[in-house]
Amino acid sequence: MPFPERVRIVEVGPRDGLQNEKQTIATDVKVALIDRLADAGLPSIEAAAFVSPKWVPQMADAAEVMTRIRRKPGVDYPVLVPNMKGFEAAAAAGVNEIAVFGAASETFSQKNINSSIAQSLERFRPVVAAARDRNIRVRGYISCVLGCPYEGEIAPAAVARVADALFRMGCYEISLGDTIGVGTPGSTLAMLDAVAQHVPVDRLAGHFHDTYGQALANIYASLGRGVAVFDSSVAGLGGCPYAKGATGNVATEDVVYLLHGVGCTTSIDLDRLIDAGEYICAVLGRPSNSKAARAMLARRSA
Amino acid sequence: MPFPERVRIVEVGPRDGLQNEKQTIATDVKVALIDRLADAGLPSIEAAAFVSPKWVPQMADAAEVMTRIRRKPGVDYPVLVPNMKGFEAAAAAGVNEIAVFGAASETFSQKNINSSIAQSLERFRPVVAAARDRNIRVRGYISCVLGCPYEGEIAPAAVARVADALFRMGCYEISLGDTIGVGTPGSTLAMLDAVAQHVPVDRLAGHFHDTYGQALANIYASLGRGVAVFDSSVAGLGGCPYAKGATGNVATEDVVYLLHGVGCTTSIDLDRLIDAGEYICAVLGRPSNSKAARAMLARRSA
Repeated sequence: MPFPERVRIVEVGPRDGLQNEKQTIATDVKVALIDRLADAGLPSIEAAAFVSPKWVPQMADAAEVMTRIRRKPGVDYPVLVPNMKGFEAAAAAGVNEIAVFGAASETFSQKNINSSIAQSLERFRPVVAAARDRNIRVRGYISCVLGCPYEGEIAPAAVARVADALFRMGCYEISLGDTIGVGTPGSTLAMLDAVAQHVPVDRLAGHFHDTYGQALANIYASLGRGVAVFDSSVAGLGGCPYAKGATGNVATEDVVYLLHGVGCTTSIDLDRLIDAGEYICAVLGRPSNSKAARAMLARRSA
Repeated sequence: MPFPERVRIVEVGPRDGLQNEKQTIATDVKVALIDRLADAGLPSIEAAAFVSPKWVPQMADAAEVMTRIRRKPGVDYPVLVPNMKGFEAAAAAGVNEIAVFGAASETFSQKNINSSIAQSLERFRPVVAAARDRNIRVRGYISCVLGCPYEGEIAPAAVARVADALFRMGCYEISLGDTIGVGTPGSTLAMLDAVAQHVPVDRLAGHFHDTYGQALANIYASLGRGVAVFDSSVAGLGGCPYAKGATGNVATEDVVYLLHGVGCTTSIDLDRLIDAGEYICAVLGRPSNSKAARAMLARRSA
């Protein structure tokens, strides 16, 4: 199969990334980062999560973030919602896209969202229906598609079952997350092939973590199967809560460098993206997790 | 083309890696690292360079290193030699393999080894002939195969010309080095396809730097073309002299994790390799550049 000509990046740094940073991030900073990412050409920017501030204090300002960002025409700003309560709050904030998040591992599902996989799917059902009634698109995330911090290996068939359920429920896209970054192209392709028997490849997204350094190889392998959407995080924001000091989300800059190098087009200006990463790294007071960004910044200053 | 079943790693950490570290490394440490790498199953370990200590003081103990390492049966310990003087010293030290090093970029050749590409090939010719007379194998390195810090892009045909010359001269293997790590699978495959018109693929090795995070994607793409030998550096030793603070050699641990994940066999015990990396990082007093090693060490200590 030829590589997709055009690839869409879903930028998850402002939510998935910053939520996993130790520091509390000011609303001003989140808004500035999201606007800079939109200006760099990111077509989809995960902007917030409408979850209980008791569990996720970093996202307590979700409604304010959605009010204050400049909604650039043509850009999607999905937000995470766990249940109807979150959905109502997100809808009230005028979002145009939400995401529900399940897992392919029973133990991870219990520990992360306090319910079995089946219970979580039942809880998503009315959320997806309500969203579609209001013309709000719904994306489905699946965690632990290539391994679980509690269960170890996850069978491709288990991923396929959850993907099938979310797709039938009405999710327009299923994002397949290697939450602990253990996957290689070997396990990635086995999983993709199982899922693609139930969900068309053009409805799938790859969400790879670089914990074992494999993310770009997995993305490259996925391109060969026709996957044309990838989640990533500017400057590799996020870290890995399951391995201290380890890397989490693959850096958007590295992904864009790869994509442009293999002839895929994106809507992204890599130089402006690097500027956005430099901005947030300056706020956080640490170097970028993006190798491409570090190399290009070194070249700029040389 | 199916992936090669068995892949050989040429470990370059003790020479290419340590030579580019800022600290001076004691001979004891070099010897201990090389022996640990042999015990981890590395089949080929670049151990030293017989070059002028005036230019490369870090390699002044090359003969002592070669005398003191435990020569494990079946393991190759190649050393770099730039000229006949270096060859005589290496041969006196009883080496079984040498490597000559040229470049695909005229400017890099001038700045790195002070001669044109043509002059360097003429200087290698008697070295290769003398080595073959004594049953010493010769590997040929080519730098800057995907880009040059001075010239920018390098034409695949320029790489093919140098590879062809080194192969005809008698090098048993040509290592294609992306010295500044700018390559992606796009440029990697274009270059490989040009070189493979002159040198059989089973005589080629990929030597990728991870400066832009692309090394594993490039290795994965190269496997798809049948390349079955890759150079890498334990713990990612080496850094990048052309971009301050940037990454150089791809980490052997990350490469081995990838290879085993896609079903290629190697002779390497990943756990013992990680131990070897932990040893040298403790000596250097800094964390590993290998993401797989960091993640696996975090898991061990959890």
